[in-house]
Amino acid sequence: MSPREEVDVPSGRPAAIPTPAPGDPRLARLSLNQWTTRHLGVAEAVDGCARSGIPAIGLWRQQVAEHGLAEAAKLVRDAGLHVSSLCRGGFLTAAGAAALDDNRRAIDEAATLGADCLVLVVGGLPEGSRDLAGARARVAEAVGELVPYALAAGVRLALEPLHPMYCADRAVLSTLGQAVDLASRWPSEAVGVVVDTFHVWWDPEVIAQIARAGERIASFQVCDFLVPLPADVLLGRGMMGDGVIGFRPLREAVEAAGYTGFTEVEIFNADVWAADPGEVIATLVRRYVTEVL
Amino acid sequence: MSPREEVDVPSGRPAAIPTPAPGDPRLARLSLNQWTTRHLGVAEAVDGCARSGIPAIGLWRQQVAEHGLAEAAKLVRDAGLHVSSLCRGGFLTAAGAAALDDNRRAIDEAATLGADCLVLVVGGLPEGSRDLAGARARVAEAVGELVPYALAAGVRLALEPLHPMYCADRAVLSTLGQAVDLASRWPSEAVGVVVDTFHVWWDPEVIAQIARAGERIASFQVCDFLVPLPADVLLGRGMMGDGVIGFRPLREAVEAAGYTGFTEVEIFNADVWAADPGEVIATLVRRYVTEVL
Repeated sequence: MSPREEVDVPSGRPAAIPTPAPGDPRLARLSLNQWTTRHLGVAEAVDGCARSGIPAIGLWRQQVAEHGLAEAAKLVRDAGLHVSSLCRGGFLTAAGAAALDDNRRAIDEAATLGADCLVLVVGGLPEGSRDLAGARARVAEAVGELVPYALAAGVRLALEPLHPMYCADRAVLSTLGQAVDLASRWPSEAVGVVVDTFHVWWDPEVIAQIARAGERIASFQVCDFLVPLPADVLLGRGMMGDGVIGFRPLREAVEAAGYTGFTEVEIFNADVWAADPGEVIATLVRRYVTEVL
Repeated sequence: MSPREEVDVPSGRPAAIPTPAPGDPRLARLSLNQWTTRHLGVAEAVDGCARSGIPAIGLWRQQVAEHGLAEAAKLVRDAGLHVSSLCRGGFLTAAGAAALDDNRRAIDEAATLGADCLVLVVGGLPEGSRDLAGARARVAEAVGELVPYALAAGVRLALEPLHPMYCADRAVLSTLGQAVDLASRWPSEAVGVVVDTFHVWWDPEVIAQIARAGERIASFQVCDFLVPLPADVLLGRGMMGDGVIGFRPLREAVEAAGYTGFTEVEIFNADVWAADPGEVIATLVRRYVTEVL
């Protein structure tokens, strides 16, 4: 197929550039977050990365469990893929011992996979509660309980601030500054932060807070912010270039802060999920080059 | 009707307390934002306040225009109502001269009505733009152009930070801290800020920024944050007590900062708008007492 015939998904817009081929140096820091191609198992996603020249993958626990942990670890290793993150632990605000136990299992899985970090979505307000300060204190306490285990396993926890619209039901960690404040209680190798463009792009402090985060940046995730949001606001994440985010200043700030890891494309979007996964991967490779680099 | 028989709207929950009667000192600082009873004209809304013992009203420009500006001013004055705000000016990011002219007219209207402030919703990204920093700079410039006119008219502009989910399409002013930073360029009597619980409740810095805002607080608006959000996220505002916000710490912080104005109940919600306006007013009076005071 000539580049002229390639079409981006899900927008249907003509491709702006030919899809970079495997080995193209521009792809050296690109990672596919597995949830972008949600319906692919680990083997298919790994194959998609290998065939497209994407050198890293962000894995999700349920797909890893379906494939088998040891087999998944071997598969990505044999394919020469780097594991840029494991998604995800957290949900600590309603946590009893069971939630902490599940996070310890997630830490073990991240260690087995050799993941750069375990992403933590910290959880929202406990059911029926309006005690936001209390929920935030509980998160700090629970992270503190996990740190020794993570340090012993050699796994870095990555605190992910989520967009404030998810404060009540997903994550009481709402800004990068708040995440850095919290992470700073522990050694940098134990607790870092995630910079996800969707969650932080609006923040008047974001550039300053990325600089402040510095070596705490454990993961950089990109996707666009769609306007209007869909009815399910969890699925408002779009292909880079389909929304309102200017990516370059954010990527440059993350690099200037010293981050040398991968840039993970993580898109939750019903139309992306309905599209052909091969076309999704080709589109994100092109858009990464034209919108993010 | 005995208190026992009263039912809150739109929740259908039994009333927790009898509706306070007109003259009840607990209502001394309550204000009805007209958009809460969106389908009422100025005369009906003023009548609703008078009959319920609500001493202030936040008016909207279109309803005022429909009633007639001079007549509306006389009506609220004759009813002994205070005008806690006029909603709204702004939308400055795509502004040419027309937008500034419209804001000057809004300033004139606020002066005629004797409103405590003119609420400004500053506008989102210009169509097709991703230059968030540029849009924010444009807001600062446009407010600066309006300040001399507002000072001459004796009208206080009130910058309203909106929830970050509206950053792209409604207001690039996203946090109270950012609003205070901006307002501080001009005299406090010219430019203040709005503290609206829906927009700021999630902010880890909100209590500190309310304290910092101090005499800049020109308006305090309350409504709840509903979870899950409805398909139209603009309508995610709920009756106090129907969502996730703990109001008391916010009200106490606003008072501790020196604010002595009214507390406006401003609810955008399809179910509230579909309910009987008299029941809406009775419910908000009760909920104000049980949830906010």
